Amino acid sequence: MSRLLLNCDIGESFGNWTMGLDAEVMPFIDCANVACGFHAGDPSIMRKTVSLALKHGVQIGAHPAYQDLQGFGRRSMAYTPQEIQDLLHYQIGALDGLCRAQGGRVSYVKPHGAMYNDMMTNPVQLRAVIQAVAAYGELPLMLLATRDNSAAQALGAEYGVTLWFEAFADRAYDNKGHLVSRQLPGAVHHDSDTIVQQALTLARGEALIASDGSPLLLQANTLCVHGDNASSVAAVQRIREALKPA
Amino acid sequence: MSRLLLNCDIGESFGNWTMGLDAEVMPFIDCANVACGFHAGDPSIMRKTVSLALKHGVQIGAHPAYQDLQGFGRRSMAYTPQEIQDLLHYQIGALDGLCRAQGGRVSYVKPHGAMYNDMMTNPVQLRAVIQAVAAYGELPLMLLATRDNSAAQALGAEYGVTLWFEAFADRAYDNKGHLVSRQLPGAVHHDSDTIVQQALTLARGEALIASDGSPLLLQANTLCVHGDNASSVAAVQRIREALKPA
Amino acid sequence: MSRLLLNCDIGESFGNWTMGLDAEVMPFIDCANVACGFHAGDPSIMRKTVSLALKHGVQIGAHPAYQDLQGFGRRSMAYTPQEIQDLLHYQIGALDGLCRAQGGRVSYVKPHGAMYNDMMTNPVQLRAVIQAVAAYGELPLMLLATRDNSAAQALGAEYGVTLWFEAFADRAYDNKGHLVSRQLPGAVHHDSDTIVQQALTLARGEALIASDGSPLLLQANTLCVHGDNASSVAAVQRIREALKPA
Amino acid sequence: MSRLLLNCDIGESFGNWTMGLDAEVMPFIDCANVACGFHAGDPSIMRKTVSLALKHGVQIGAHPAYQDLQGFGRRSMAYTPQEIQDLLHYQIGALDGLCRAQGGRVSYVKPHGAMYNDMMTNPVQLRAVIQAVAAYGELPLMLLATRDNSAAQALGAEYGVTLWFEAFADRAYDNKGHLVSRQLPGAVHHDSDTIVQQALTLARGEALIASDGSPLLLQANTLCVHGDNASSVAAVQRIREALKPA
Repeated sequence: MSRLLLNCDIGESFGNWTMGLDAEVMPFIDCANVACGFHAGDPSIMRKTVSLALKHGVQIGAHPAYQDLQGFGRRSMAYTPQEIQDLLHYQIGALDGLCRAQGGRVSYVKPHGAMYNDMMTNPVQLRAVIQAVAAYGELPLMLLATRDNSAAQALGAEYGVTLWFEAFADRAYDNKGHLVSRQLPGAVHHDSDTIVQQALTLARGEALIASDGSPLLLQANTLCVHGDNASSVAAVQRIREALKPA
Repeated sequence: MSRLLLNCDIGESFGNWTMGLDAEVMPFIDCANVACGFHAGDPSIMRKTVSLALKHGVQIGAHPAYQDLQGFGRRSMAYTPQEIQDLLHYQIGALDGLCRAQGGRVSYVKPHGAMYNDMMTNPVQLRAVIQAVAAYGELPLMLLATRDNSAAQALGAEYGVTLWFEAFADRAYDNKGHLVSRQLPGAVHHDSDTIVQQALTLARGEALIASDGSPLLLQANTLCVHGDNASSVAAVQRIREALKPA
Repeated sequence: MSRLLLNCDIGESFGNWTMGLDAEVMPFIDCANVACGFHAGDPSIMRKTVSLALKHGVQIGAHPAYQDLQGFGRRSMAYTPQEIQDLLHYQIGALDGLCRAQGGRVSYVKPHGAMYNDMMTNPVQLRAVIQAVAAYGELPLMLLATRDNSAAQALGAEYGVTLWFEAFADRAYDNKGHLVSRQLPGAVHHDSDTIVQQALTLARGEALIASDGSPLLLQANTLCVHGDNASSVAAVQRIREALKPA
Repeated sequence: MSRLLLNCDIGESFGNWTMGLDAEVMPFIDCANVACGFHAGDPSIMRKTVSLALKHGVQIGAHPAYQDLQGFGRRSMAYTPQEIQDLLHYQIGALDGLCRAQGGRVSYVKPHGAMYNDMMTNPVQLRAVIQAVAAYGELPLMLLATRDNSAAQALGAEYGVTLWFEAFADRAYDNKGHLVSRQLPGAVHHDSDTIVQQALTLARGEALIASDGSPLLLQANTLCVHGDNASSVAAVQRIREALKPA
């Protein structure tokens, strides 16, 4: 069973508003995708989040987004490829600044929300993101594992950027390896056993069953987990336990 | 005559709005205080500003501010010392991110507007700023030269932060070495000869005449100049010429 | 026993972040102080909040603030009196726009956070607020009842603005009728009986006991209550019950 | 010759940044499309803009936009129809608040930038805008005149909203009556004679020549003019003169 890193969106509070059970989920994850102030997080929240991650030895990833606090970075916005790069450099750097002040460093990059989705459907934007990560230097990029990762891998190789492909234990996939839309029934697994089972299948490098019944083999380096509420934290703890090396 | 670096606020455009003659003044300055997005500047403006500075071999300074775009960072805001540090780390880091993508680095820090003024009048805030700069690591802090720099120097020494004291060639000083308020007559020199003369006096390490007629000796490492309009750029060019080593 | 309106801060969610138990507390209050987007609230939150208030027949008050989302409008900011007026007109109008689309109207104004505190300590700012409310037209202004309301009343009369003075059932007062700072012990009452008792004392027009033991008579039109959590909502329900006309 | 109102985007400054020659162009226009703070304008700029419009007897239109200050409201954003309505009510109301404080009122609505373009290409969004304007009450909506206005007119009739169709004197049209993209050569007329001639043709109700050489009859109530710089203001003055009733 290969090592499957657990990554989780973290630091999504803002000012006086709290979101997520960061302190509860942090002990069970490997990689914290830290909001950088454009969809969530503010400089003080980011400091606290970095401190918590460092305390637990969790890798700190930049989780940059479109500038849309009200929409939580989930609305597509018509940025140019150059603007996307500027957004990335600004936000990665900002988080790196807060890390540096505590003796840490940003370890990888995972775009958030609409920026992530647009990157997965628009090759021009994926190129912009990879170029930006390459120019920043040395950081891996986290993106969605699909049935065929070869186009992304070619782009990564072109710019010398390491790619970390992520899969989901709590989501159904279609036969291309894309996530089934949340609008559709059965898109999200709520049963804890199903979730742990899917995590194990992915960790063993075995095929999932896509929504059309066909087998789907995903090559994934990391598993996206959630710290939104008590039940998702409990699921993370069970996944962590199940994936423990024998 | 000692070397007196010329520093200038740069990169104060935002989105579609343009401010300052950055391209015109850049050839004549040593240090560009680059806005970091909280009072002016946005990620794309910052990229262009960094590019221009690198092209001219000008040192890039972070020019962080309170988060107040409408007020241009000129309104005092009741931040805690910890929040001030967070603001600084976020903004220095963000600019460093944009520098790094172009092969450059932030070289020093100069707080902007109300953050600068509050730091000069409130020792608790000056300590917060110096602590923040120390934690970020290795960057000098630019602040106002007054008659007596010893309190600031003691704080800088306590945290191992190099201080660069700045003086103004176009402003009148009171006998404590503080700038005469812009509300008062004679606070700002508009005559180009007077400005060049004050720059030379400062560069030679000679005393200015304070507003009460007393001599005022300022120990300054750098001179703050302005690129707002054609006449201020012309003044910078004259100062540059006058300060040239013989 | 005079009629004492219950007012409560409402609509303090923002985007994906939730704050307060608006639906739970709304049935028990008379006046909803609705956040207008500058410290909390966004156009969609405001629409939902207005809809909830209209459904319960609760008066809708504009709760304008300094523009500081991260600081929740609780940090003092150095606005000019004219800027304060502009902030008020913009935010009252914005809420009025959302009311109007649902057949409602803004019924009164209560500044939020630092804008409220600054108005109570700085007569220049109180004048600016009263002028702004007068210029908007016809709306009462809610402000803090203190031992001596005469200065505020004179200003209100000068501009023809009706003043609604508010008192607190869960806060201790000093002998001038100002709230005891939250930094001090005993500043906030947590015991539900004490809170209901203080509400009744205020409603009967009887004197409270100030923090120095002296009697304190407050002339109040309205009582500020809180919908932050289940226990504060329960307290509001008890106050509502206790104040019912016999 | 029918009366063709001249409308112009106004109040597009923000904080310390200035844009447009508002004071210069105001004497020559009938309708000022006033930015409402989401793409440009802030409460203080809006107050000054309203004051200037009232002084010249110019009708004040709300010019609401997506919330994207950096992108000047020109980037498409994936808002829901309900969110579009909320944006409109908030911004129309905010401007109405600033008008009301000076004894004026908002007279019409013209969406800005990407909100305008999306409304012209997406019938779902056009319906949302018309619904929002209807719910606010009594205000006409300004939108683009095309070869066939019937679909828009049917929607306007359905909700009882008066539509003001606008045409451009300085832009080339394709044969459907859409503006030729600014990316294409010949899209924008720079010659002042050509601009005035096109204005006169529109005012006389005669056909323009579309980019494919075919005649194009546009039914327009208003002409969009520009106050960006001295030459566009001069063009407005010439158009005003040319359109004067004999």
